[in-house]
Amino acid sequence: MKIDYDAAAKMLKECDNAYILIHQSPDGDCIGSGTAIYYILKSMGKKAKVICSDDIPKRYDYMREDYKDEDFEPEFIIAADVADINLLGKYKDIYGDKVDLCIDHHISNSMYAKNTLVDPDASAACEVLFEVMCAMGVTPDDKLTKCIYTGIATDTGCFKYENTTARCHEIAAELKRGSSVNFALLNRALFETKSRGRLKMECLAVENTEFYLDGRCTMIVVTKELLEKMNVEPAELEGIAGIPLQFEGAEVGVTIKQRDEQSFKISMRSANSANVSDICASLGGGGHVKAAGCLLYGTLDEVKEIVINAVKKGIGA
Amino acid sequence: MKIDYDAAAKMLKECDNAYILIHQSPDGDCIGSGTAIYYILKSMGKKAKVICSDDIPKRYDYMREDYKDEDFEPEFIIAADVADINLLGKYKDIYGDKVDLCIDHHISNSMYAKNTLVDPDASAACEVLFEVMCAMGVTPDDKLTKCIYTGIATDTGCFKYENTTARCHEIAAELKRGSSVNFALLNRALFETKSRGRLKMECLAVENTEFYLDGRCTMIVVTKELLEKMNVEPAELEGIAGIPLQFEGAEVGVTIKQRDEQSFKISMRSANSANVSDICASLGGGGHVKAAGCLLYGTLDEVKEIVINAVKKGIGA
Repeated sequence: MKIDYDAAAKMLKECDNAYILIHQSPDGDCIGSGTAIYYILKSMGKKAKVICSDDIPKRYDYMREDYKDEDFEPEFIIAADVADINLLGKYKDIYGDKVDLCIDHHISNSMYAKNTLVDPDASAACEVLFEVMCAMGVTPDDKLTKCIYTGIATDTGCFKYENTTARCHEIAAELKRGSSVNFALLNRALFETKSRGRLKMECLAVENTEFYLDGRCTMIVVTKELLEKMNVEPAELEGIAGIPLQFEGAEVGVTIKQRDEQSFKISMRSANSANVSDICASLGGGGHVKAAGCLLYGTLDEVKEIVINAVKKGIGA
Repeated sequence: MKIDYDAAAKMLKECDNAYILIHQSPDGDCIGSGTAIYYILKSMGKKAKVICSDDIPKRYDYMREDYKDEDFEPEFIIAADVADINLLGKYKDIYGDKVDLCIDHHISNSMYAKNTLVDPDASAACEVLFEVMCAMGVTPDDKLTKCIYTGIATDTGCFKYENTTARCHEIAAELKRGSSVNFALLNRALFETKSRGRLKMECLAVENTEFYLDGRCTMIVVTKELLEKMNVEPAELEGIAGIPLQFEGAEVGVTIKQRDEQSFKISMRSANSANVSDICASLGGGGHVKAAGCLLYGTLDEVKEIVINAVKKGIGA
């Protein structure tokens, strides 16, 4: 059942204790919203516990300084930023059909919970939770401010992406007026620093970028050989598909990842007007308008030619 | 004389026509505020002209689509985002002592104008101008929105830096509510794309970064040899001093630029608590707490050792 802010606020106030589920491969928004719910429940004297199928990355520890795990049997199950039970990982079978309240912002939410508060126009689950806090009369302290800000900032690429609403700027302003958090330091850690391995990987990707169609199509080919040369953990390859679009003038960024001698995984990103969902569909794949993919077979040269021709047609070059 | 928003608003309303001076090496904030003043004056039927000692970079053309140069003798001279007449470049001698109204946000403003509206707490000159627009009763159209947003976004690193006030988030929200501008596209052009030369330069800098004091001090040495290898315009070296701080754990980022065989220019940046102004002062230089520099003589190895020892002492490593 779909519910509104007031109903969600009432449930948080009335539950006795709760497990708070967040999605696997946890990011700033699910950790932020999940941890914020934990702090809200704790401040009301309730028991609470955040549960995730994967480890919480150390870089988000600053949100969890006052978090303590405790053992109890939950009477209420909450899911934060979880669009579907498949994102619960190893907890899917245990809690998938037992979620009492889901707080989310994904338009794709599969409505698996008994009660779902979802606002697809919100930039982040943390934006939705902020409105619930307003309905509850909770004034964010520094702990809550760090959580809510982190979710909004990470999901919007620090107020850069299309989902950056006027409302999320207003919430950032409210959080800043009411706290002594060092936001610049937080932003530096979240957006301006990277591991050595990650920076090296990005540089190798930039150096190996190929330019087609007058630079309107940029391409990175990650062969097995290059992957060995990069010498990075698979996790550090995350987001590599965005790198070819960093070049001025690029309209479609293509990443070709070698699977074996004659098969390649293609990822495409669009900078603006190009519809890469259509382009990938013409190659037997699919996805979203600005991010799509497909699988191609042949030699690398054959695959490249197929891709470039499809992009050429797609952007009318 | 220091004036307030209302007085500045009155002057813009009452002047017959104006030259609008912006600073040399123009950036998003001076182009944004200068061009916005132009549009405001034009909308009131006045003549106006933006004047800059250097060319306006093409990447900011989107703000100037409705800008047209016209010839006239000015009765009023305005300076936007110009802290001192030395920043007027070749126009210093012609207009330096003739500025009627200065709109600025630099604490260092030298009060050279007959009337100065300066708010050192504002993130950008565009933030100050937005308040003047409010005092004038001007509602920003899409043209003005692009200008004001660009100034605030570029001067705050897209809402990342310390100068990102609650107020500038509120202004961003107001601009977004009232316009049909594609802010995500604008942000992409301003913050997510770079020239090939720039990306190559950054990669070479990353690859050549040296790590000292357990990675707390990171260093790039730009020898004449490396500079030739980089093969970039001097303008593309701008901001290189920020690169060593991209590495996780770096507290002080040092850039050593070779001037000749035995002399080196040192730039230091602090990630957070390190006071590089003090460190550079101990080496005969100076600057700000988070960005400072000095000049050292000797062989490269001698200079490096001097720098590392000073940083070690400065951060208590």
